Amino acid sequence: MLIKVQKFGGSSVGNPERMRRVARRIAEAADAGNQVAVVVSAMGDTTDDLIALSRELNPQPERREMDMLLSTGEQQSIALLAMTLQNMGYKAISLTGRQAGFRTDGSYSSAKILSVDCQRVRDELEAGKIAIVAGFQGVDHCGEINTLGRGGSDTSAVALAIGLEADVCEIFTDVDGVYTADPRIVKKAWKIPEISYDEMLEMAAMGALVLQPRSVELAKQYGVVLHVRSSFNHNEGTIVKEEVSMDKDMEKELIVCGVAHDMNVLKVSLFGIPNRHGMAGDIFEQLARVGVNVDMIVQSGSRDMRHDISFTCGRDERVKVETAVQNLMLTVPMEYYTIVDTLAKISIVGAGMITHPGVAAKMFRVFSENKINISMISTSEIKISCIVDEREVTKALMCLHTAFGLDAEEN
Amino acid sequence: MLIKVQKFGGSSVGNPERMRRVARRIAEAADAGNQVAVVVSAMGDTTDDLIALSRELNPQPERREMDMLLSTGEQQSIALLAMTLQNMGYKAISLTGRQAGFRTDGSYSSAKILSVDCQRVRDELEAGKIAIVAGFQGVDHCGEINTLGRGGSDTSAVALAIGLEADVCEIFTDVDGVYTADPRIVKKAWKIPEISYDEMLEMAAMGALVLQPRSVELAKQYGVVLHVRSSFNHNEGTIVKEEVSMDKDMEKELIVCGVAHDMNVLKVSLFGIPNRHGMAGDIFEQLARVGVNVDMIVQSGSRDMRHDISFTCGRDERVKVETAVQNLMLTVPMEYYTIVDTLAKISIVGAGMITHPGVAAKMFRVFSENKINISMISTSEIKISCIVDEREVTKALMCLHTAFGLDAEEN
Repeated sequence: MLIKVQKFGGSSVGNPERMRRVARRIAEAADAGNQVAVVVSAMGDTTDDLIALSRELNPQPERREMDMLLSTGEQQSIALLAMTLQNMGYKAISLTGRQAGFRTDGSYSSAKILSVDCQRVRDELEAGKIAIVAGFQGVDHCGEINTLGRGGSDTSAVALAIGLEADVCEIFTDVDGVYTADPRIVKKAWKIPEISYDEMLEMAAMGALVLQPRSVELAKQYGVVLHVRSSFNHNEGTIVKEEVSMDKDMEKELIVCGVAHDMNVLKVSLFGIPNRHGMAGDIFEQLARVGVNVDMIVQSGSRDMRHDISFTCGRDERVKVETAVQNLMLTVPMEYYTIVDTLAKISIVGAGMITHPGVAAKMFRVFSENKINISMISTSEIKISCIVDEREVTKALMCLHTAFGLDAEEN
Repeated sequence: MLIKVQKFGGSSVGNPERMRRVARRIAEAADAGNQVAVVVSAMGDTTDDLIALSRELNPQPERREMDMLLSTGEQQSIALLAMTLQNMGYKAISLTGRQAGFRTDGSYSSAKILSVDCQRVRDELEAGKIAIVAGFQGVDHCGEINTLGRGGSDTSAVALAIGLEADVCEIFTDVDGVYTADPRIVKKAWKIPEISYDEMLEMAAMGALVLQPRSVELAKQYGVVLHVRSSFNHNEGTIVKEEVSMDKDMEKELIVCGVAHDMNVLKVSLFGIPNRHGMAGDIFEQLARVGVNVDMIVQSGSRDMRHDISFTCGRDERVKVETAVQNLMLTVPMEYYTIVDTLAKISIVGAGMITHPGVAAKMFRVFSENKINISMISTSEIKISCIVDEREVTKALMCLHTAFGLDAEEN
């Protein structure tokens, strides 16, 4: 008998009809003879509605109270989903994060899971029940409710799979799996059958957020096999695991597994910073203090004992960035700064590029042949990212998809 | 420094504006130098909405899952109310039933409170915070969430007041207090300044449900002084306590403290039941089995070795009653039965009637002088109730109010 963890997001249980469809999906897994533990998020817009309501009463509520409030969303989902399964004749039981043994570190709104004591869930599974567990939440050593931050339900599911030593962890989403590029833009994109954790991390860190990066990191650490698939059909999705097997049907060995894009790019450039020791430290400390998540950083060579620094972050962080830069100018005598919000990030991802030199060169050549200007570059072992004008995104995705041999043959 | 428990119902916190008004009310009590612990219900229609949603997914959900679902309503209220107070500059903290130490007996949907360990609440009060506690809920010895049944928040408030040895327990409602009769019907009705627990119980068991009877019983048992008052104004409400002091302003000693009515009456009569041993037991066991709450019972004298039994219950229990009676007819050879739903119950309540004979006689005389037919009668030590035609309710209330000297002088 296999142990299966299934995770359903908020949009999958957004209304009674969808809730019933999810229940049928769970029931199928149980009928197939599996022990099934389910992690579910809050229904549809519940979390956003609660946040809006709280803002009306307090624009800056304490995070403890936000966690107290928001954790009710998942508690409602699990109860309703358990009822739905019971109505279909299945034995099911809902469990809060606390009841399911999720111990967290006490950081309200962004807690880390310290441990999962799965005894209760295991007992319910042994008793022939489907266990429906609230994602996104746990309790700290004082019994205070913590949430894991938005999207934390993926991480809950992986943690539960680890605790239960589950055979597979299915992550249900509204897409069929992980694609070589956004299929709404690149018509020849196709679903990747298998992808490594690292590649998934690089893909996930960008636009198409089918999986929270934290959950992938956790899955990698414990070797949990993830199956990202659609809750709307029974197609095989994308398997995320350590060693990706060579697919016989794939005629070519792919160096690049996907091309991703991210429109949420704000580029900030600070010009004429004195070439003094510790300047970069001062700058990024100040940004961290106001909570800006910096992505790419480029420092130019110096001239006249001064240099320029550019970095990117999310467009929604503009206000925080401006606050930080204003503060900086009091202590760091820079010449001026610019903020540009009409850019996008294009990345190619693939574990194969470690052993294949010249991938970056090929990417840049493709861009130059297509008259796409590159404004920033950053590289990791398995990813190369370029910042380009947002109007070039479609062209950039399509020409890279073709150049790296990703185009599906029959589309 | 006094310890005050304040309880606010769901309609008092039904929207952000009302939530802020409640917060101001709490803040006033804190500003006056009290330690304040607050018990709050779910916002407005939250509970009803959740019930409706659950019914869509499962018409007969397990009660454990209903408790899991419904307890989120109060958890949302406490978080939002704590945020509101924090926004006004007060230190406040929300606590679930579990965190506030409410231990219940494991009966889902209708749990009894076994104990309240107030250490956490006490610590928060000592730390200068206003403690906002979720009413209506607790956890059993396995950590399962139990609800106390609808209206259980009054009982939570009283239990918290006992645990904290509070000086007063204020129950805020949308009326000014307990009246001698429904002021919408009897214009000369007035607010009773003080009432004994027993009188309150008899009044509460009827139409004007300003306080849950369970909460009054608990308050009586531990001698908790209750103050029933309006959340809309600062008028003194009604004090509920053991010994009611003689009010100097009251010119007459009142034998009857109030006249109550209840329109929710269904009268069921079973005719020609054999005069055999155990028949009544069979009948009311059957009714209990389907969950009918029987109120008044009258058995007529026998004729031809047969007799008649009539009882009353709520009008909403008609379907259950008919099921029970149909079942009964299989084993109890009665002649026929009738169900009447056009009746109402009129009661006079007063601790004074124990020592004043002739109160019942006076009530019947008043009815006969006003040509009101009595269809059933029941009496307790401090209450006399009559079932009359529902069209007679206004006349009955007014003439009894006058006859027992309750009419206010200046109205």
